[in-house]
Amino acid sequence: MSRILHELNVDLGDRSYPIVIGQQLLGNYDLTPWVGGSQVMIVTNETVAPLYLERAIRSFPGLQVDTVVLPDGEQYKDWGTLNRIFDALLEKRHSRKTTLVALGGGVVGDMTGFAAACYQRGVPFIQIPTTLLSQVDSSVGGKTGINHPLGKNMIGAFHQPDVVLIDTASLTTLPSREVSAGLAEVIKYGLIRDLDFLAWLEAEMERLVALDSEALAEAIYRSCRCKAEVVALDEREGGLRAILNLGHTFGHAIETFAGYGNWLHGEAVGTGMIMAADLSAREGMISDADERRVRDIVRRAGLPARPPEGMSPDDFMALMAVDKKNIDGKLRLVLLAHVGQAVVTADSKPENLTETLAKFCR
Amino acid sequence: MSRILHELNVDLGDRSYPIVIGQQLLGNYDLTPWVGGSQVMIVTNETVAPLYLERAIRSFPGLQVDTVVLPDGEQYKDWGTLNRIFDALLEKRHSRKTTLVALGGGVVGDMTGFAAACYQRGVPFIQIPTTLLSQVDSSVGGKTGINHPLGKNMIGAFHQPDVVLIDTASLTTLPSREVSAGLAEVIKYGLIRDLDFLAWLEAEMERLVALDSEALAEAIYRSCRCKAEVVALDEREGGLRAILNLGHTFGHAIETFAGYGNWLHGEAVGTGMIMAADLSAREGMISDADERRVRDIVRRAGLPARPPEGMSPDDFMALMAVDKKNIDGKLRLVLLAHVGQAVVTADSKPENLTETLAKFCR
Repeated sequence: MSRILHELNVDLGDRSYPIVIGQQLLGNYDLTPWVGGSQVMIVTNETVAPLYLERAIRSFPGLQVDTVVLPDGEQYKDWGTLNRIFDALLEKRHSRKTTLVALGGGVVGDMTGFAAACYQRGVPFIQIPTTLLSQVDSSVGGKTGINHPLGKNMIGAFHQPDVVLIDTASLTTLPSREVSAGLAEVIKYGLIRDLDFLAWLEAEMERLVALDSEALAEAIYRSCRCKAEVVALDEREGGLRAILNLGHTFGHAIETFAGYGNWLHGEAVGTGMIMAADLSAREGMISDADERRVRDIVRRAGLPARPPEGMSPDDFMALMAVDKKNIDGKLRLVLLAHVGQAVVTADSKPENLTETLAKFCR
Repeated sequence: MSRILHELNVDLGDRSYPIVIGQQLLGNYDLTPWVGGSQVMIVTNETVAPLYLERAIRSFPGLQVDTVVLPDGEQYKDWGTLNRIFDALLEKRHSRKTTLVALGGGVVGDMTGFAAACYQRGVPFIQIPTTLLSQVDSSVGGKTGINHPLGKNMIGAFHQPDVVLIDTASLTTLPSREVSAGLAEVIKYGLIRDLDFLAWLEAEMERLVALDSEALAEAIYRSCRCKAEVVALDEREGGLRAILNLGHTFGHAIETFAGYGNWLHGEAVGTGMIMAADLSAREGMISDADERRVRDIVRRAGLPARPPEGMSPDDFMALMAVDKKNIDGKLRLVLLAHVGQAVVTADSKPENLTETLAKFCR
């Protein structure tokens, strides 16, 4: 049965947009009111297409609907794959009034959003995230982009969707490893800004891991609301928004070291949050009990607690040096002032970072 | 002697920026007030670098200045060349506080602007256009981008510079063919919106072709002012701004047919304006005398009056079908309501277009 459970508005002035969360929405919820012209290009991948593409097409009755099916995986988040979207748009003669639709996880969303930002200098787009990670993270906030061999997400744009449609039914086909990866970002919201939510997650983690749909819908809603609040306060990442990167500086280094696609983004963020908590404790910002609390909830979500075999402190230092948060060559990290409150700092002691890296790299 | 001749403000709210026009400004005018961080990346090409790169570096005293030298030509306005800018930025560890500087013609400006729009999701940039075409056209308006094999400028972004520095001294090294190409856009401003300026151009064309520096400075100022007015009224090309494309629909088809780099953009626009005037006359919008007036001024600027050998009406129709101005598959053209006033229309008679193409393609 199709049912809307939550609606949320991301408040960005004339770029505001709604997030609609519910059950069995795909194929039943009419998305044509968000399409300005007569053309739609749905971008998805080989894994999602057989499951949901037909239903997504049914969400746009009466329009010219074309599709592009990309290979699945972070390793394809590059220019060559992005260009397949441009090829399809030009071959099918999509005008600057076309609407792009991202149907899939974060990679599809980031690439489709970037294609929408760049095609004929910008066209509208709609997000239909089908993984937990993309539902709670990459569908909110307007960050789009692709990877460069020297760094993740180095090439991109801020481009807001016109609407985000989240169907919890699409999680029933998600591998458990990807559920855990999504939970990493869910836990993050509790850690950076919402202690109540963290306590709720500690109580409900078993239901979430077991894919209880009501618990998942609640977690998605509270995560999106938290991210929407942060993004509304700081759309361009001038300050506050950087706290959303808790665990991401260590995590990006892990992903780059492992090779894109070998570690899931959420897995790397999970380990990264444990490392950030360890460093926060060494800095005297949180207690050892708090550090354990972070480690426990991350592990209960089924996430790895250590970086990959063979990754050294030097690997971390070299890869973290190109992080986008750095300013004029100075490393900036997101740490925990308390559990439930993150801060961005360039002032952590180098010896503490050295100790954290030494502890985890062995 | 270094001297500022004109200053102009492009009024775009919080994205407004100044255009500074003068003699011998490069290397003498201090650009550091427009740089937020401590890093600058100057992007130029093989032709411009030996002439002006040293002087450009002197405009940023006390900062980390790195440089990228690209191959010269429209045929390099593609992803592979763009990526060299990203490679250089990442290899030299430029942060999101870096400033990109475009030193060169329209291709360098478009690519550097697009790199600035996309690097870490957007960094500031400064335009130092060194060709007449880029001084009067592509340095104003925020359009950036690269070409796709299926169409020119199909991938790009709107990204405004923080300042544009125009040094008339850089025109002394410009080949006469490129001066003519720049004059095509200068003439365009007279035709679309400024009959007084057109009359001035008819009186001064010999001085312009002979590179009289005072006449050139005046032409640059009046052209930039006209474009700045149009862009301020319509930043995102919702309506009015499309008139800046007079001659460009035919012109883009010519450039694509000839292969990027074989016809200069301005040469193709020159021929395109003559073709647009011919069609306007067939539509009964302007007189045959007006059509000759357009042809005469374009030819006096040293521009070609016919498309390349072997280009057929079918070639035009196929290439014009992918023009960005088209909406939902319908061809839209910029025509002349009068000399001095352009209009955008999707209502020209197909038989008149057929006759215009038949006349020019033989």
